[in-house]
This record gives sequence, structure tokens and C-alpha cells, in this order.
Amino acid sequence: MSHNTFGHLFRVTTWGESHGPALGCVVDGCPPGIVFTEAEIQHWMDRRKPGQSRFVTQRQEADQVRVLSGVLARDDGALITTGTPVSMLIENTDQRSKDYSEIARRYRPGHADYAYDRKYGLRDYRGGGRSSARETAARVAAGGLARKVLPQVRIRGALVQIGKKTIDRNNWNWDCVDQNPFFCPDPKMTSEWEAYLDGIRKQGSSVGAVIEVVADGVPAGLGAPIYGKLDQDIAANLMSINAVKGVEIGNGFAAAEISGEQNADEMRIGDDGRPVFLSNNSGGIAGGISTGQQIVARFAVKPTSSILTERKSIDADGNEVDIRTKGRHDPCVGIRAVPIGEAMLACTLADHYLRHRGQTGRAGFEE
Amino acid sequence: MSHNTFGHLFRVTTWGESHGPALGCVVDGCPPGIVFTEAEIQHWMDRRKPGQSRFVTQRQEADQVRVLSGVLARDDGALITTGTPVSMLIENTDQRSKDYSEIARRYRPGHADYAYDRKYGLRDYRGGGRSSARETAARVAAGGLARKVLPQVRIRGALVQIGKKTIDRNNWNWDCVDQNPFFCPDPKMTSEWEAYLDGIRKQGSSVGAVIEVVADGVPAGLGAPIYGKLDQDIAANLMSINAVKGVEIGNGFAAAEISGEQNADEMRIGDDGRPVFLSNNSGGIAGGISTGQQIVARFAVKPTSSILTERKSIDADGNEVDIRTKGRHDPCVGIRAVPIGEAMLACTLADHYLRHRGQTGRAGFEE
Amino acid sequence: MSHNTFGHLFRVTTWGESHGPALGCVVDGCPPGIVFTEAEIQHWMDRRKPGQSRFVTQRQEADQVRVLSGVLARDDGALITTGTPVSMLIENTDQRSKDYSEIARRYRPGHADYAYDRKYGLRDYRGGGRSSARETAARVAAGGLARKVLPQVRIRGALVQIGKKTIDRNNWNWDCVDQNPFFCPDPKMTSEWEAYLDGIRKQGSSVGAVIEVVADGVPAGLGAPIYGKLDQDIAANLMSINAVKGVEIGNGFAAAEISGEQNADEMRIGDDGRPVFLSNNSGGIAGGISTGQQIVARFAVKPTSSILTERKSIDADGNEVDIRTKGRHDPCVGIRAVPIGEAMLACTLADHYLRHRGQTGRAGFEE
Amino acid sequence: MSHNTFGHLFRVTTWGESHGPALGCVVDGCPPGIVFTEAEIQHWMDRRKPGQSRFVTQRQEADQVRVLSGVLARDDGALITTGTPVSMLIENTDQRSKDYSEIARRYRPGHADYAYDRKYGLRDYRGGGRSSARETAARVAAGGLARKVLPQVRIRGALVQIGKKTIDRNNWNWDCVDQNPFFCPDPKMTSEWEAYLDGIRKQGSSVGAVIEVVADGVPAGLGAPIYGKLDQDIAANLMSINAVKGVEIGNGFAAAEISGEQNADEMRIGDDGRPVFLSNNSGGIAGGISTGQQIVARFAVKPTSSILTERKSIDADGNEVDIRTKGRHDPCVGIRAVPIGEAMLACTLADHYLRHRGQTGRAGFEE
Repeated sequence: MSHNTFGHLFRVTTWGESHGPALGCVVDGCPPGIVFTEAEIQHWMDRRKPGQSRFVTQRQEADQVRVLSGVLARDDGALITTGTPVSMLIENTDQRSKDYSEIARRYRPGHADYAYDRKYGLRDYRGGGRSSARETAARVAAGGLARKVLPQVRIRGALVQIGKKTIDRNNWNWDCVDQNPFFCPDPKMTSEWEAYLDGIRKQGSSVGAVIEVVADGVPAGLGAPIYGKLDQDIAANLMSINAVKGVEIGNGFAAAEISGEQNADEMRIGDDGRPVFLSNNSGGIAGGISTGQQIVARFAVKPTSSILTERKSIDADGNEVDIRTKGRHDPCVGIRAVPIGEAMLACTLADHYLRHRGQTGRAGFEE
Repeated sequence: MSHNTFGHLFRVTTWGESHGPALGCVVDGCPPGIVFTEAEIQHWMDRRKPGQSRFVTQRQEADQVRVLSGVLARDDGALITTGTPVSMLIENTDQRSKDYSEIARRYRPGHADYAYDRKYGLRDYRGGGRSSARETAARVAAGGLARKVLPQVRIRGALVQIGKKTIDRNNWNWDCVDQNPFFCPDPKMTSEWEAYLDGIRKQGSSVGAVIEVVADGVPAGLGAPIYGKLDQDIAANLMSINAVKGVEIGNGFAAAEISGEQNADEMRIGDDGRPVFLSNNSGGIAGGISTGQQIVARFAVKPTSSILTERKSIDADGNEVDIRTKGRHDPCVGIRAVPIGEAMLACTLADHYLRHRGQTGRAGFEE
Repeated sequence: MSHNTFGHLFRVTTWGESHGPALGCVVDGCPPGIVFTEAEIQHWMDRRKPGQSRFVTQRQEADQVRVLSGVLARDDGALITTGTPVSMLIENTDQRSKDYSEIARRYRPGHADYAYDRKYGLRDYRGGGRSSARETAARVAAGGLARKVLPQVRIRGALVQIGKKTIDRNNWNWDCVDQNPFFCPDPKMTSEWEAYLDGIRKQGSSVGAVIEVVADGVPAGLGAPIYGKLDQDIAANLMSINAVKGVEIGNGFAAAEISGEQNADEMRIGDDGRPVFLSNNSGGIAGGISTGQQIVARFAVKPTSSILTERKSIDADGNEVDIRTKGRHDPCVGIRAVPIGEAMLACTLADHYLRHRGQTGRAGFEE
Repeated sequence: MSHNTFGHLFRVTTWGESHGPALGCVVDGCPPGIVFTEAEIQHWMDRRKPGQSRFVTQRQEADQVRVLSGVLARDDGALITTGTPVSMLIENTDQRSKDYSEIARRYRPGHADYAYDRKYGLRDYRGGGRSSARETAARVAAGGLARKVLPQVRIRGALVQIGKKTIDRNNWNWDCVDQNPFFCPDPKMTSEWEAYLDGIRKQGSSVGAVIEVVADGVPAGLGAPIYGKLDQDIAANLMSINAVKGVEIGNGFAAAEISGEQNADEMRIGDDGRPVFLSNNSGGIAGGISTGQQIVARFAVKPTSSILTERKSIDADGNEVDIRTKGRHDPCVGIRAVPIGEAMLACTLADHYLRHRGQTGRAGFEE
């Protein structure tokens, strides 16, 4: 039973709290012979790193990954996986635990404080403890390794909605995504979001968002029927990200509104003699199994619960209190959820690929 | 790794195809001492049963459950669980496999036919085989037992949207749900849906739907952080239902549109001295852990892919073909998804309750 | 968490009690395209079947297997697996529950009665309920299917010790095994065991045994380090058989007595240019991974606890009682443990083979 | 699927190689509110630590444990678990990788080198990499925490056999165990083992051993039928220790030799009105469930494969070679297996206790 692990053949276990000395992950099941560098993992870490614009938390963390096991170093410094668990560690350096002392016994509205106390009878209140988004740094490290397991697959994400402001999909431009602080794919929306979020930020308020993650190059046949469905695992793994309240695949909720004729993805034989789909309402998954089309998933992130406006709450002693949450917070946690969503999709696909292909991809009886 | 099993301490394994001799489930981990009757399970089966109105498939199945193991019979005929696996079997009686012969090698658009063939190299084409909604009969049987594990919890579901026609939540009336063939909670919507679906049915078309399932009486503290979140498991288990393309908890996707002030569920001390929440945007789950509020989840079901309108496709030999899917189909599979969604929620909660409380709920060292 | 399931990619879930209407198993993860017949499964069932000689229980069960799902029937009647769960059912026909009424509240010494009551607060006392060796019929059915997954592997078992009477390994003759009621590989031991067990049987006593199971043709590379070791899974799965109290691999406990020089399996290059081992002290497994040699495991079965000699015990009300266990029992349950041990080894190897090779053995990106 | 994890509710994942920068474990599922100190964990580490006598490897490792997550520090320095994963890290400080360069492509007889290469296509040859006994340091750290979960249970171990020299159980004295370098419970055997092992050591040879581990204070009712048996998990977890080739519970293999009358553990009502067993042939487990008696398990460890005597082998290029394994090795790895066996038993019992009692031991509906 996995409280802190996800995946079956590509298994990721994360550990660590917001204000502990370090956090990290253990990736169990990574196939042998994968070549990578710490810098390649760091590339993905840096996309998620806090403090990179005024629209995200001002906590300063280098988020430097150290690989502690599961690899051999080549002469050129590259690492080769050996098939044994890859342990990766990230030190926490910029904790400010005193910011939190006044909420040690108070339940911040919208946060998990009350639920944790009811479950465990105690909690690490410093920066949200285990429920902090800092835990997701470990996911991104694991996702970096997962991408290496699937070199043929390209996994990308973008922010498609902030508050009620939704991009125009006709303007979608992947090149735009890395050229603004929002992972926004619509060049015409960037400045609008900037002004909007500046207003939110100055009010000490926050707002929700919707993220889309896609994978190109996924072969047909990944997934399994009924309770091992690829879309089910994508849903679970995206829903495990902090603050996520909804997940959809392909058409998603919009599928409820249309007819069977509109929704069916028709097929033809392409010029190269291979099957082609004429649309992708399914988001690349039918009956829980990949069809070979682009995998498309979206998830909704609620507004950051840590806000400066006073809200009604109670404390652990049963007193009514009013709370304003200080500290350094993201006005829209959805922004940094983009690289996290990509990482979760990468890990999910690596896991299903290994289920399909086996632990090592090496021959058995055939040899 | 669970292709056909879900849950950890309350584990449900289902088996069976649409046109095999029978289907069923094995519930492993049901606590000892639970008293129930086959009639009580049958009550839930009958709600999902096909052939009950003109708006669902005309296949006639009694869906009679037989309990084959895991119980002792009391003198009054009631069954008592012993803590060993409860095997339940449902015979298939109204298969018409010849209806399907012409799609044995053709891929029905919107169906999993192509994906299955790509994965397995062969498939049971009769009635969709394992990917048929008949599999869900076994889920409903398991859900009936799960409800008995949680007598304090009330689990209910309703259809809230068919196509673009959404109920008015101000009219919500639980009594209405069992008084119409749609599980519709809005008395003013029933006749509108009736006319609308009659039109869809006569065209040989289909349409999608949205279902809401709720649980009252769930104690605070169920769930676990990070990758054992209650909402994550609800999302996975609802997404595992045939044709589901989206899942949301509480405010869901609407949470993306609002501010942190609007979204935070404020708290006060109630007249009875106990904590009360002033709203339930969270859907009863914070940080993956239940808060003691009503659990609220919704899921979107795509339109039935089996339609009479001709659609473009290919066959297993690489020929382009046009397909109209005959057979007996639901014009809106979302209708019968209501009792299935309830069953999945019941099983998920029973599982998390047992994780919280242990296998047997009997004392260890304290004795 | 698996109370009633074993295996990860080839997953076997069993259900059923000694005196219920039926028992069975669900095999989840069986690859698609495996061709088999019910008669082939029945062959293995018949080896384990009760009532075949005076040395085993006189309960008469046909142990006829019905395959209820997961297969397509070919025109010649052979079944082809589709990759979906294979449900197999065996009816109980010769229960005599009244034999047991007097032990409903009494704890038979050496049995699990007391432990079950302490765990569950109630138990199915009829024929041992779930703890009866009848459960193993389902394992043998699953094992029959597992053998089909591994056509290159030959799995055999033999009884090597009854009480203090151990076979002479120099006389080992596999042909002998099926020509006596003991699965004895030593033609010179058969009559001695016959006389010895006749004595035990007439006294209403019982005796323990040691079984050896071997697998030839297992490729090198199955297993995984540390907590996914092949020998660890063999140990767990053999230990899960009723009445087993010890398991060993290769030299087993005898390895404690010898030096590193004696124990090391030296290697050379064979005439065919391939590596050969000069001995097999390891039992074909090093570091948890198969070496390509014969896999060798042994397990010890305690004497049947149901004996006619009066033994001291207590009842559920705290009274001291003396118990003689009537009913139809095996004087040496170890005999019928031979086909069960084979089945468990077959399932374990099929599971590890699929971990190695993947769910379907079909190509992913290579296509 | 767990390559590097064991346990279900008390889950231990280990990582690290012999010659990497560090090794460690993540304990997921440790209940909240457990109070412990790093020094208490260190106490168990020190018992397993290398270099403590001339009878074990001369590698010098402080084996200092650092707790990186899952705890809050009390003012007195004690740590309190929060219910989130406890990550523990141990640095490697005394690697001498050059000792191993000459076996980089040679397969040491009795080692897992050949099997690893066949499985993974490459391996970390330095000090055995992941298959080194250094991995067990992480198990002992986890075991130290497991003991804290079960304060009522006392877990102890002893070495009962080295080579053919077995202790006299009539001399058993627990106080003796910590007063000699062998964990020997028989004061009369100590000097004999000392002379014997000095001889083995001087020859550059090695020898096997048998370890017994016991647990007192385990309540009745832990374990689960069929494939979740307590003895099955003990067997698996002990068999997962490096070099273990056999496991037995209670009478173990000796149960094969005796009659049902001799083997049955009779019961009576004790002077305190509670059930008492008159013997413990079962080793405290019946039908997979604890009886409330002392849990007794033994395991056999093969002789260290690293020996100075030249043995025949091959290399990765298919050449025949003769190998003497230099480096610093234990003449009898069985000695240090005592604290490791204790740790595995502690973790197994903690896991089953939590299955029985639930994650947190806190009330659900009752509150």
C-alpha cells in the first residue's frame, strides 16, 4: 500500500518536509543502462524552482539534485543506471520556520491542517510540512529520469487558464511556453495574465488555474483494462499533486455535451499505409489503453490557500480565530504545477512502458 | 500490480466478459462479522440492471448474485462474513453473440477495439468482451458489501447533466432520484430529459452525461498524504469506469476560476461545541484527507460509442471500412453509471476506512 | 496488500472454503495467446485429487475445473487466453459438515482454530473452512495455466522424506514418481513407506514429510535484487501452503555446515562455448537471480494435526476439553503437497518471467 | 511490485551500494507519535557494525544514522514521528574500490556477479554493489524504528550453529549473547567457536551458520490466511537477507520427522484463567496467524563466497579464469546476520501489527 510511493515497475517514493534538512526520492525499477547527467535532471528542476519571477513564491532554493545510488559514473562524468534504486537528494536551504510559529495550533482555512490533526493527532506546521509543494521537487527529479527511460516520447505542458482567463487554442505556440513566466502557449495572453496576476499578488490574494500536459510518440498498447487503465493512473497521479481538484483526459467534461457521432475518432489508412485517426477526442486512450495518438490530459488547481485576507477559522483548542497567512506564497500555484504535471505524466508513462516491456528489456528464453 | 483489482485493504478483483458464461468478483479483506443478505446486494444490482426503461440497453439480464464463499449462514438466512474472501458470481443469460460477428475484425470508432488488438494481438469482440459495461455488475455487487462495512455512511448519486442540459441545483431533491429513469434529482428536468433522450434514441445516436456522487457521515482522518490521497483514489476508481473522461472533487474545475478568499472553507465552533465548516468547496477532502464534511465527486461520461450512424474506420487487415454498430445499446451510458459511481465510492471509502482502522477492528495489545 | 493473492504480474487470487458450494481462483495477468484445454488443467488437478489411495483423505471430489472467463474457444475446443482475467471454478460435492459440529467451539490442537478465533472473533469450523487444504485445489488449477506460460520450463516434484525415512538420492528416478502413491523417486523406498504409513494410518496417527520441487530450463536473469528475489518469492509461496514449516533453496540448511570452497559453484566454458557450472549448491539462484541452472527447492510439512489420539485443549468458553479429531484426513498431508508445491513453483516462475519480459511480450517502440 | 521495498503498512525501501557515497532507507507508514532518539537507532546499528572483532570484516564504518524526515524534534532532542516517511541516511566512508578492479569483468564463484550480468547487462562490481551486505545497515536502522512501534514486544536473536558446531540448547543464556563476538547463547560453546573460526580465518576460508530469532509479547491474531501469512512474510523477509538459503518456523524441518501427537501444541487454562499452550512446536504461528506464544524462526546462512582459495570461473568475455577474492571479508557472515535477522523480524511484526490495527491507531466513527 503506497502512501508515499507511486508506480508499479517504475516506482517513485518521495520523502521530506518543507522545513526539514532535505527531501528526496528513491526511484526503484529504473532499467539498467540508461545514460544521463545530473545537469539533465537539473534542467527540469530549474523550471519548477521557486523565486524565478514575481508571480511565484520568493523562497530561494537552489534545488540542486545529488544522485546517491543506482549509477556508475562514466569517464566523461555521465551516469549509467545499474538497475538498482536511484536515490536523489535535494537539500532545503531557505527555510524560515519562525514565519509559521503562530499557526502551530491554528487551522489555516483551505489547508490540510485540520485534516492532518484529525488523522495524526499532531503535524509539522512549518511551511505545511509534508503537504507543502516542496515535496514536488522530488517528483520533478524522478520525472527527469523517467524521460530518459522514454527517449522516443516528448512530454510537454502549458498553462491554459488562470482564473477565468483562458487561452485561445488557435494561438497555441509551443515555442512561447518557455518565453514567459507562466508557461503560457498563447503569445496574445501573456501580458493580460501578467497584469491580472500583478493585481492578485498586490491584494495578497490568489487564483486557480488549469494545466494541460501532452505526450507525443507514445506507442499503442500501453495501459491495461479495467483497474490498470492508463488514464486511471494518469488521473490518480495528477490528482496527487497538491491543490489539484479535477482531472480530464481528451475531451474530458466536454465529452458529456456532445453526441456519439461527434465524439467518435474516425480512422483511415494513411499515405504510409499505417492507421491514422481523424480526430483525438479520446486524448489518445481508449478502454484504458493507448491508441498511438497524442496523450492529452488537463488538471485544475485551486487557488493558493495561503492568503493575506483574514479568514474565519478555529484552533486546536477549540477557539474561534481569524487567520491571515503570512510567509512567502505563490499567488497562483498553478504556474509551477506545469513542470510537476509533466513529471507525473513522464513517470506514469515510464511505468506503463515497463509493464509492457518488462524490467530490463532483455531477452529471456529467446537467447 | 492490479490490472483487475482495486483497493488495498478492501480489495475487489473482478473477472468476466460480456458474452462469457458468467462474471463476478472476489472481495478480499472484508472484515469479519458483517451481516448481510443476498437480497440487500440484489437491491443495488437491480438499480444498475439493463432493460429497465427505454433509455437503457434492452439486453435482459436478471443479474442475480450468488455468494460462493467467505460467509456463514445464520439460521434466519442472513450471511455473516468470516474475514475470508467473498466470491460473488453473476451469470450471463441474454448474450446474443451473433450480433457482433461482423465487427470481429473491424474497429468500431470510439471503442477500445483497435487499442486492444494493438496491445494483445487478439480480442474477444463479442459485446466488447472485457471492456463491456457488463463488468460493472461485479462492481455494484462489491459496492453493496462495502456499504455494509460502513453502516454510518450514506452514499448516494444522481445524474446532473445529459448533453448540454444541466439540472438546476436549487431544485435538488434526493427523493426525486429514484422516481425517474434517469436518477435525476431535479423534478423540473425529468420531462425535458425524457423528450431529449427519446430524440437521441430514435436517431440511433447517443449523448454524454455528468454524474455526482456524495457520501455523508464520513469521519475526518481517512486518506493519506501524497500518493495515498483519498481524492486520488476516488479519481482513479471513478476514472476506471467505462467511458469516463473526467473526474472532479468539490468545486473541481470551477476552483480554477475563483480566488483564494472565495475558495477557502472557513470554520467556526458550532452550537454543540464541535468544529463546523461554513462551506464545502473542498468536497470534504483537504490534503488528501477527509475533513468530516460531505464527500463530493463528479465524473463525466462520454456518449456511447455504439451508434447506428455510419462512421469511418479500418479493419484488422488494413482496409478502410464504414461501420454502423448494431446490437442493444444505451443511448446514454451515463444513466446506469450512477449506481456504478456509488459503488466505486463505497468501495473506496471502505478501503480507506480499513486502512485507518485495521483489518479486523479487534484489539491487539490492549486485550 | 495480498491476503488471498500472490504474484505481481501473474497474479493468483483464490477463494472458497472446505464446505462452501465451490472454490476457485482468478488468474490476472496471464498473457494473451496462450492455448490450453480444460483437460490439460485437469491433468494436474487429478494428481492432487483426494481419495486416490488409502494414504490420503477418503473425501471424494471430482475436482472438475470450469474456465469461466479470459478465453476464446477455438473451433477444436482449445481455449486461447485473451489477456483478461481467467476465472476457474471447482465445485465442492462431498462435504460432510455434520462431522464437524462437535468442534464448532473447540480448538483442535495443532490447528488454526484458536488463532482464527482470536483474530476474527468467529470462524467457519466446517472442515477447517478457509484453512482447509481444499483451497490448494485452486492453486493447482492456476499452476496448470502457469506451466502453459512457460512451455520451455519443466517443473517436477517428489517426496523425499516421510517421518525419519529419507530416500537415497543415488536411486533417484523420475519415472518412478508417478508409479506409486507417494510421488516417491526412489524405487527401493516405496514398499518401506507403504508399510510405515499403513501403521501410522491404522493408529489414527499422522507424520510429516519433505518435498523437493525442481525446475529445468529456467533462463538466467529472472528475479530481482534485495526484496524481489526469486528465492524469497519461492520461499514465501511454498511457506503459504498449509502445514509448511520450513523452506530451503539448493543446499539449504546444509550450507551452514560447509566451507566457502565446498559451497562455491565453479564455472567453466562448455564444449558448446557456453558457460557451465560444475555444481549446483546454489539451487540455481544467486543474489536472488536465476543463474540458468536447475532451480531446486525443498519444503517441510508438519504431520496432519487431525488425529484420533485424544489431546488436551480448551473451548471457546474457556473450558478444558480433550479432543480426538474425527472426519476424513490424510495420514501424511505431505503426499498431496507434491503437486501443490509444483504449482506454486510454476506460478512463481511465471510471475518472474513476466516481470522480466512484460505483460504481453509484444513490441513497444520497436514496431 | 517491490524490488527494493518490503512490508505493506510499515513499508521499508532501501537504496545504496557498497561503494557509493551513502546508503539509506525510507520507512513509509510509521505511525505518528512514536518517540525515539537517533542514539536508540544507533544502538542497533552498532551491533551490526563491521570491524568489531577479528571474526568479521575489517572494513571500518561508523554507520552513523541521520534522520532526514518524518519527525519533529522535541525540546529534549527526542524525535516524534509525524506519520510521514522517515528517511534515514548512512554515509559510506571506508570504501576501497581499487581492491575490486580485477574482478570487474570476472565472475566470483558463489557470488551474484554472473546472474547480475545476465540480468542487467552491467553491474557495479565495487564491493558487490547493491548485493553487498552493506545494504543491510539500512535494514537495521528500519528495524530500530520498528521496535519502537512495538514497545510491548521483545525481539532477540542468537547464533546457534557455525559449521557443524551447534550449541547445546540446555545451556541457553540470553545474557551470554552480548558478551561474546558471536552472539552465542551457549557459554560453553564460545571458546570452541573462537578456535574454530580462527582456523577458518587464517586459511582464508569461510563457513556457514544458523541464526535463531524470537519475539516475545506478540499478541494473538497477527497475520492473515493463505497468502498474507505471518510465517510466509517472515520467511520471505529472512530469505531476502544476503546468503540465506533456508528458513524455518518453530520445529521447522524437524516437524517432518515426528507424529501428529508429538507435534500438536496442547492447551490448558492457566492459573490466571487465560489459555496456555503446553508446548511451542508451532513457533507461535498456526494457519499463518500468531497464537500469542513466542514467535520462533531460524535461518541458514551459506559460507561467505569471498575466499582466498583459488576457484575456477569465467569472465565476461568467455575466458576461463581462476579467482581468489581479496578484499576485507567476514569469515562467517552468519555472525553479523543476527542483528539483521532481528531487524527483519521487527519490521515484519510492525507491518502485521499495523495491518491489524490500522495506520494510525486513532478512532474513526467512534469519536
